[in-house]
Amino acid sequence: MTPHVDSRAGAAVKAADRAHVFHSWSAQGLIDPLAVAGAEGSYFWDYEGNRYLDFTSGLVFTNIGYQHPKVVAAIQEQAAKLSTFAPAFAVEPRSEAARLIAERTPGDLDKIFFTNGGAEAIENAVRMARLHTGRHKVLAAYRSYHGGTTTAINLTGDPRRWASDNGTSGTVHFWAPFLYRSAFYAENEAEECARALQHLEDTIAFEGPAAIAAIVLETIPGTAGIMTPPAGYLAGVREICDRYGIVFVLDEVMAGFGRTGKWFAAEHFDVVPDLMTFAKGVNSGYVPLGGVAISGAIAETFDKRPYPGGLTYSGHPLACAAAVATIQVMEEERVVENAALIGETVIAPGLRELAERHPSIGEIRGTGMFWALDLVKDRETREPLVPYNASGADNAPMAAFGAACKKNGLWPFINMNRTHVVPPCNVTEAEAKEGLAALDIALSAADEHTTAA
Amino acid sequence: MTPHVDSRAGAAVKAADRAHVFHSWSAQGLIDPLAVAGAEGSYFWDYEGNRYLDFTSGLVFTNIGYQHPKVVAAIQEQAAKLSTFAPAFAVEPRSEAARLIAERTPGDLDKIFFTNGGAEAIENAVRMARLHTGRHKVLAAYRSYHGGTTTAINLTGDPRRWASDNGTSGTVHFWAPFLYRSAFYAENEAEECARALQHLEDTIAFEGPAAIAAIVLETIPGTAGIMTPPAGYLAGVREICDRYGIVFVLDEVMAGFGRTGKWFAAEHFDVVPDLMTFAKGVNSGYVPLGGVAISGAIAETFDKRPYPGGLTYSGHPLACAAAVATIQVMEEERVVENAALIGETVIAPGLRELAERHPSIGEIRGTGMFWALDLVKDRETREPLVPYNASGADNAPMAAFGAACKKNGLWPFINMNRTHVVPPCNVTEAEAKEGLAALDIALSAADEHTTAA
Repeated sequence: MTPHVDSRAGAAVKAADRAHVFHSWSAQGLIDPLAVAGAEGSYFWDYEGNRYLDFTSGLVFTNIGYQHPKVVAAIQEQAAKLSTFAPAFAVEPRSEAARLIAERTPGDLDKIFFTNGGAEAIENAVRMARLHTGRHKVLAAYRSYHGGTTTAINLTGDPRRWASDNGTSGTVHFWAPFLYRSAFYAENEAEECARALQHLEDTIAFEGPAAIAAIVLETIPGTAGIMTPPAGYLAGVREICDRYGIVFVLDEVMAGFGRTGKWFAAEHFDVVPDLMTFAKGVNSGYVPLGGVAISGAIAETFDKRPYPGGLTYSGHPLACAAAVATIQVMEEERVVENAALIGETVIAPGLRELAERHPSIGEIRGTGMFWALDLVKDRETREPLVPYNASGADNAPMAAFGAACKKNGLWPFINMNRTHVVPPCNVTEAEAKEGLAALDIALSAADEHTTAA
Repeated sequence: MTPHVDSRAGAAVKAADRAHVFHSWSAQGLIDPLAVAGAEGSYFWDYEGNRYLDFTSGLVFTNIGYQHPKVVAAIQEQAAKLSTFAPAFAVEPRSEAARLIAERTPGDLDKIFFTNGGAEAIENAVRMARLHTGRHKVLAAYRSYHGGTTTAINLTGDPRRWASDNGTSGTVHFWAPFLYRSAFYAENEAEECARALQHLEDTIAFEGPAAIAAIVLETIPGTAGIMTPPAGYLAGVREICDRYGIVFVLDEVMAGFGRTGKWFAAEHFDVVPDLMTFAKGVNSGYVPLGGVAISGAIAETFDKRPYPGGLTYSGHPLACAAAVATIQVMEEERVVENAALIGETVIAPGLRELAERHPSIGEIRGTGMFWALDLVKDRETREPLVPYNASGADNAPMAAFGAACKKNGLWPFINMNRTHVVPPCNVTEAEAKEGLAALDIALSAADEHTTAA
C-alpha cells in the first residue's frame, strides 16, 4: 500500500470512530483523531495523501517499524496453524518465545510469565514481590509511568495517576536522580547519584525496611522524560535491595528490546533486577503482549505453592509467534546495533547541533533510539516551555511546536514541555536526518516563546 | 492439520515450556502441561495422536471454535494491511468493531472503550463509575470472578482473591441469589429473589448509599457456578441502582457474545446496565481483546473532561479485525441461534437424563452453551462432592472424574465440585451428544464417591 487520496473512506472511518470509539486519556468531545490509512517502516499516511515520518514508534512500541514482512508472515502462518489456545497448555510459539526472551534477559531471569501488556506485567510483578517477601509496601519514583490498572497507575509518578489515586494502599513515591532538574540541589552526576541514593535510604528508613516488598523503577524512565540514571545509581539501588531483602523490579516496557541500543537498558548499568517487566518492543506491538521475566529465587517461591494470578490470554500463541519473529528479525537485521549506531552517529550529533542554534532546547539526553529534548523558556532558569501538566492556552507553545512538526511531515512524540525522539530502532540514517530537519523548523516555532525571542 | 504422532516435537515444546514458561494460577513444579499440536472446530489434539472434544472452549472463549477459516483469513488480511496502530488514531477495524459491537449491545451502550481483556475492562468500568458518581465504594458478589488485576481481583468473590486481597479499599461483597445453595434459607425462586434484593438493600443501607459508586455483577456468574439469577433479580438491582444513583456494571466477559444463546445474557432479563464489560467471545480469543460498552450518560461525563485511563493497545487493529470477522461469522452462520437451539434440544434434555441416572448430580443449571453440573456426595444434604477450594487428596473425587473424561476423549471444565458444559457455541448436535456420552461414563466415577455408592 502507498499513500493515495480516498477522502470518502477516510470520512467513513472517522464517522464510525466518532460515533462509537471511546479513546484513551481523552476528553471525547474535544479530540479529532486522524484517520490513518496505512503504514510501512518508519512512515504512516492518512486518507488525504499526507505521509508522516513517525518519530513516536506508535507509543514507542514499533521497534522494527510498521509492517515488517517477516513478522507479518509469521502472524499469518501462526493464525493458519493455531490462532489461540488456553494458557494451561504447552504450545510451540509460547515455549519458543519464552526461550528466546529468557536467553536475552540478564542474569537468571529465566522464567517468563506472559501478560497482554505492560500494566498487567507490573500488576503481576508486584504480586510476586509481595508474596515472595511477605511484605506489603512498594516504592516507586516520581516522574514514572507503569500502566493504567490499579496497582500500576498507583505506582505511576505523573498526573495520569491523580484521578485514580484511591482505593489502594502501600505505595510510596520517592525522587529518582535527574540532574537537570535535581531534587537534591546537586551540581554534578556523582553528587546527584550519591544524594539520590541517600534519599532512597532515608525514605526506606522512615517507611520501615522490613515492610517494603519491592522497589519499582523504569531502568531509564520513558514518557516521564528519558532521564538516564547516573553511573552507579542502579547498582546502588541493587545493593540497597540486597541489604534489606527488597525485590528489585525494573520496568523495561518502553526501554527494553533494543530501544536504548542494547537488548535491555539494564545492560548499560550492569545491573540484574529480580523481576523485569516488558511489553511493546517484544513483538513491536503487532499483537498485544507483555510479561515478567522472573529470577530463579522468585520462581522457586511458586514451585510448590500456586502462583495466585493469571489471565485468559497468558502466552497467547499469535502474540508469542509475533515475538519469536520479531526477535529473529532483530538478530538477523542487527536492529539493536542499528539503534545504537544511528543514535550515536546521527541523532546525538544532530540534536547537539540543533541545541546550539535553538534557545528553546534546555537539555538533550538519551541513548540509542531513546532521546528527549527538554524545552525551556529560558536556558538560565530552566523554566519549562509550558508549566507542568499544562493544557489549553497554557500549552500553546508546545501545541505550536507540534503543529509545525506535522506540517513538515513529522509526527512528534510530545509530553508536557518535552519532545522525544523515539523512531523505530531500524530507522535509516536518511530517515533520522529527515526527522532532524523537520525538528529544526518546528523548534523555531518553540524558540518564539523563549526569553531569547 | 490433523492429529498425528510426533513425539519428538511434542517433547521439545514441553521441555522449553518447563524451562521457561511460568503458568497462570499454578504451582510451577507440580504441573504437567499437555503439549498441544493443533485444533479445529470443537476439537484439539496433542503430539501423541490423542484428540479431545473441547467442552471448555479454551477458558470459555472460543465461541466459534478453533481455527474458523473466515476469522483466520481476516487476521491474515489485516496483518498484511496494518497489524498495529496507536490508540489515539481512527483506523478502520477499530471503527468497524466498535460499530458492530455497539449495534448489538442493549440500550444506549453505544461507545466502546477497548482493552486487551476482561480484567482491564473491569478496571476501567470501575474507574468510570467512580469518576461519574464521585463516590468510592464498589459492591460485588461472592461467587464471582472479574479478573486478575488489582481492582478486578479485589472485586472477585472466590479463593483466587485471597492472596491478593490487600492494598485496596472500597470493595464490599454481598450474596447474590443461588437457590440451590441459598444464603437466605429460601424455598423457591421468588423467595430467593425477594430475599437477595432485601439483602442487597440492607447492605447498601449499612455501607451508605451515597458512598457507593457501582454494583458489579456477572449477568450470569461463570466460573463461580453458572447461577442463572431468578426472574426479577437483575431488574430489581437496576431499580435499586436508579434509586440511589449507583452505576450498574454487568460483566459479560464470559456470558456475552452468544454463550447463553443471546448476544448478551442481559437480554434474557430485559435489563440494561450503565456499563457492560466484554472480552473472550468478542473475537473468540483469536487475538487478545476486551472492552467496556458505555451508556450515553457516562460517556457524556468524559465529553469535555479527559478520561484518565488508557492503554497502548486499546482498539488494536488485529484484535478488532478478528472481532469484526467473528461477529460477521456469528451472524452468517447463526451461531447464537445454534447455541440456544443445541442448548435447549440436546444439552438440556441430555443433562436431565444423566441426572436421572447419576446420584452425583445434585443440580443441573444453565442455558445456551453455558451449563453447570453441581456434583454432590448426597442429594439430600447437597454436600458438595469435594469441599470448597479443595486440593490434593480432598479433591480426589473430582480428579477421578476429570481423568475419566479425558480417558474418554472429552476435555472437561472443572471448578471445585462442578463441571461446566461450555463447548463452542457452534457445536454440532453430534458433538454435543458425543460429549454427553463421555460425561455419562465419567459421572459413574463420580457416583462412586456418593453416599448412594
